[in-house]
Amino acid sequence: MQELYVIKIGGETLNSEESLQNCLQAIAQSGKRVVLVHGGGRKVTELASKLGIAQEMVDGRRITSAETLELCTMVYAGLINKNIVARLSAQNVLSVGLTGADFNSLLSTKRQHPTIDFGMVGDVKSVNASLFHKLLTDGITPVVCSITLGENAQLLNTNADTIASEIAKALAQSYNVKLVYCFEKNGVLSDVNNPDSVVKLLTFNVFEQMKAKQQIADGMLPKLHTAFHALHNGVNEVKIMHSNHLKACFDNDSTGTNIQL
Amino acid sequence: MQELYVIKIGGETLNSEESLQNCLQAIAQSGKRVVLVHGGGRKVTELASKLGIAQEMVDGRRITSAETLELCTMVYAGLINKNIVARLSAQNVLSVGLTGADFNSLLSTKRQHPTIDFGMVGDVKSVNASLFHKLLTDGITPVVCSITLGENAQLLNTNADTIASEIAKALAQSYNVKLVYCFEKNGVLSDVNNPDSVVKLLTFNVFEQMKAKQQIADGMLPKLHTAFHALHNGVNEVKIMHSNHLKACFDNDSTGTNIQL
Repeated sequence: MQELYVIKIGGETLNSEESLQNCLQAIAQSGKRVVLVHGGGRKVTELASKLGIAQEMVDGRRITSAETLELCTMVYAGLINKNIVARLSAQNVLSVGLTGADFNSLLSTKRQHPTIDFGMVGDVKSVNASLFHKLLTDGITPVVCSITLGENAQLLNTNADTIASEIAKALAQSYNVKLVYCFEKNGVLSDVNNPDSVVKLLTFNVFEQMKAKQQIADGMLPKLHTAFHALHNGVNEVKIMHSNHLKACFDNDSTGTNIQL
Repeated sequence: MQELYVIKIGGETLNSEESLQNCLQAIAQSGKRVVLVHGGGRKVTELASKLGIAQEMVDGRRITSAETLELCTMVYAGLINKNIVARLSAQNVLSVGLTGADFNSLLSTKRQHPTIDFGMVGDVKSVNASLFHKLLTDGITPVVCSITLGENAQLLNTNADTIASEIAKALAQSYNVKLVYCFEKNGVLSDVNNPDSVVKLLTFNVFEQMKAKQQIADGMLPKLHTAFHALHNGVNEVKIMHSNHLKACFDNDSTGTNIQL
């Protein structure tokens, strides 16, 4: 099967012109087949603060009022997505920026939770795998932001790690899929205060042990759950790494944390 | 040749839930092949005001600083574009929201003006006609916002009327193209204070006479120039009308102002 990288970029990478450019340049120069997924929560928080719209996070997830959803749609689908698409184009990578509403690429269900009302938050229900396959076959790089389409034309704010994992799963039947989470750290750290304490190989057993020792920070927990979920569903490799090392990753370097079952 | 409608919606239509919904419903129910183009300047002005970012207009065109371009990208490519795409999807119309950077659909040149620095404003240089043709053939409705791609990954704010006219021109070789400008008035008015004074047929001669009598309001002048430019370049019909009458337009009603050479 053909190789496909599903790459999620998030965190500080999206806030640093230089890191983002490094990341996109590595993708452009690699010549690899890529689906790019991005978040952009920090910019939403910035904009909300300027507009005086209070934000509330629960377990690392944003409570998304109708007003906050407008900010998310502006920042994710507009500002960040289109800047990435423009930068890729300037490096001769033809791409298209997508929400789940475009081509019905990602349909979702409004999250129902017994005690917390997350608001306009969606959980992925289906991935339009044939659309992604068609775009990739046409030499187009899909650039997917963290907005999906719920019922009745409702856009929904959706976690980007989960979107990356769901796209990786959906394409695992047609491709040898490598799922790569890029952010501003060198990988999963055994000591959050020591950037060099990268866990090179994280099996599910190691994960359970680290959890028991409370070595896994809050934000990392859901990310690792999506990683294992992807591996359980046909995705070949999952890696968590610094976005600056993406070039090395394409060269089969063992940088970052490799997740295995 | 097959029929194609290039429909531009702007002005108050985008600010009214009901008008926008009417418009999109008419498109969905018509079953016609459509390229939809939209602006959204009023929402940009609103957001700029909330953020305290001063806006300056010259001849109806927005002076676009780097900061204002961010607002335009957020509002046009994010908020408005994706809401339209979502609403179309809910009416079983598969669509994709585009800036000029997506698929390199619309490339532009940064505007050079002898005396006015418009900032990050672009003039359309080329339309990727084969991309639009391919999407339409696949049954996809392109929804194009008023952001194009200049050199060096620079997104540029670009007039939506001009974009509609340029797309109509570019597709006139492959389709029988009808260019329709929808807004909140019933057409070109001979008396701006009388909404019923619609000029049913506006030839270039009538246009010149109205201009001489100063019957054409400022905002209408560039719109009519793009209309005549389109007709001079192979576009079959151009119409200016109220967005609420779009259904009647599809039924070959003679609503609004028909522009002819």
